[in-house]
Amino acid sequence: MRAAIILALFATAASQPATPPKKLTPTDIVAAAPASAWRAIPAEDLMVMTLEGGGRVVVQLAPAFAPVHVSNIRKMATGGYWQDANVYRVQDNYVAQWGIGDVKRDFPAGVVALPPHEYWRSPAGLRITPLGWPDVYASSAGFSGGWPVALYKDGTASLTHCYGAVGVARDLHPDTGTGGELYAIIGHAPRQLDRNIAVVGRVIDGIQHLSALPRGSETMGFYKEGTVARPITSVTLASEMPEAERPSFEYLDESSPSFAAYLRSRANRDDDFYRVAAGGVDLCNAPVPVRPTPEEKG
Amino acid sequence: MRAAIILALFATAASQPATPPKKLTPTDIVAAAPASAWRAIPAEDLMVMTLEGGGRVVVQLAPAFAPVHVSNIRKMATGGYWQDANVYRVQDNYVAQWGIGDVKRDFPAGVVALPPHEYWRSPAGLRITPLGWPDVYASSAGFSGGWPVALYKDGTASLTHCYGAVGVARDLHPDTGTGGELYAIIGHAPRQLDRNIAVVGRVIDGIQHLSALPRGSETMGFYKEGTVARPITSVTLASEMPEAERPSFEYLDESSPSFAAYLRSRANRDDDFYRVAAGGVDLCNAPVPVRPTPEEKG
Repeated sequence: MRAAIILALFATAASQPATPPKKLTPTDIVAAAPASAWRAIPAEDLMVMTLEGGGRVVVQLAPAFAPVHVSNIRKMATGGYWQDANVYRVQDNYVAQWGIGDVKRDFPAGVVALPPHEYWRSPAGLRITPLGWPDVYASSAGFSGGWPVALYKDGTASLTHCYGAVGVARDLHPDTGTGGELYAIIGHAPRQLDRNIAVVGRVIDGIQHLSALPRGSETMGFYKEGTVARPITSVTLASEMPEAERPSFEYLDESSPSFAAYLRSRANRDDDFYRVAAGGVDLCNAPVPVRPTPEEKG
Repeated sequence: MRAAIILALFATAASQPATPPKKLTPTDIVAAAPASAWRAIPAEDLMVMTLEGGGRVVVQLAPAFAPVHVSNIRKMATGGYWQDANVYRVQDNYVAQWGIGDVKRDFPAGVVALPPHEYWRSPAGLRITPLGWPDVYASSAGFSGGWPVALYKDGTASLTHCYGAVGVARDLHPDTGTGGELYAIIGHAPRQLDRNIAVVGRVIDGIQHLSALPRGSETMGFYKEGTVARPITSVTLASEMPEAERPSFEYLDESSPSFAAYLRSRANRDDDFYRVAAGGVDLCNAPVPVRPTPEEKG
């Protein structure tokens, strides 16, 4: 019975002789994408965080959308700002948040203490691949440089709070946060936060080390004073690590035929498990595929 | 600094003298809803599950949408079918799944071994409160009897795979599953599953006991053979429990003015934290509020 259930929620059909070829799942399409459809993510855009007890979280930074906050984060990561940092808030279906919390510590040199808001930018210079379906939070939605993006009628563009998005915790506006306290989305996309917070990246590996942490018992998922969800052992950038140890990732170029096929498939599941295809998909239910850079073939 | 961060992601503004009254958050609106806006959930619609080590999960069943599967589930819950059941699959941003897996066990009397699909129903007899914004997976979306519902151009209606939705794991169609193996959604709504699986309810309390479980290491989040995420100690219906021990819940009637205000507020956050209101909300980002039934005032 277990074998049957293993099939239950994904469409990995057993091949049957004398039937048409198996229809492809989104996973199949991504697995078959040629090397030319993948784009390397620069090592200086990868923030690598390790949690006590093991567990590595890799955040892809988004300098094209939040340059000042990302610059701050890079300086904090390399300047020791997050020594003794920890995850101190885990709110179900919402966020895991980390940083140094109460601790007062000087910023490393070059950190901008009061950054501009960076909640949105001009779409000028962004090549946008449209989602192809409406977005209730914006005029339209699509993908650009590996990011899920919303476009607004006032002519602005923003990153979106999809699952895994990393944003800058802040106090009431006009405060914009420094980047010293960050959160990752661990539930259904709270898109109302778009254009209200600086989104600085997304978790591309190890999100389960944040999303599976016990929820905090206090209001908004905070941990009781003196307790934390998990200490953070180290934070650095991949570009600062010895080359042999660096994690390396690439994303599926949204302008590639493979991405177009993936998106069509996410919106029209017709593999053997499915009886009815939805005929649509929302932005956050079509995450840009990311994979570890394959080993070079010798 | 921690105090400031506690404010960061919700809009609980410190009151300032000589300023206009604080704008209401969705939480404020729900807290202020009069008793008349709340509807009791019948005790026979509450499946109560306890996990080893503590942790109670309460699932509201949806007999109006999946009557045969719900009847099966009630008989399994009261007939000892789930003895030695466990959570054996936890896939990040997707589902936690439980049941008896490999174990072969006769069904309690009255269980329908091959139920009809119950993936959708006629909307006849359903009073629908429209969401008011488009839904990319259906012709329209709204709420009915405490449930998030999608309506299709072929004249059908279905429950939706929002966060917390509970569905019936199954093999490839035309199998529909019995209800013996269930899953709960623990990530961004995988709405492609709508009309492809019998949705039988939703977790209304204790979802964190499923969503914070360690993710399984095998394909699709399954646990390695011989290991499980968490044993299930007991499953019953609230209606079978001694009255003094029964959990009791009510939901905010979607036809009430309070619900209308809640929905408007979810779509147009204008409390002090926010700088820009979205002007829209998707179905699964406006969960129907549920609360424990308040103690009667003496």
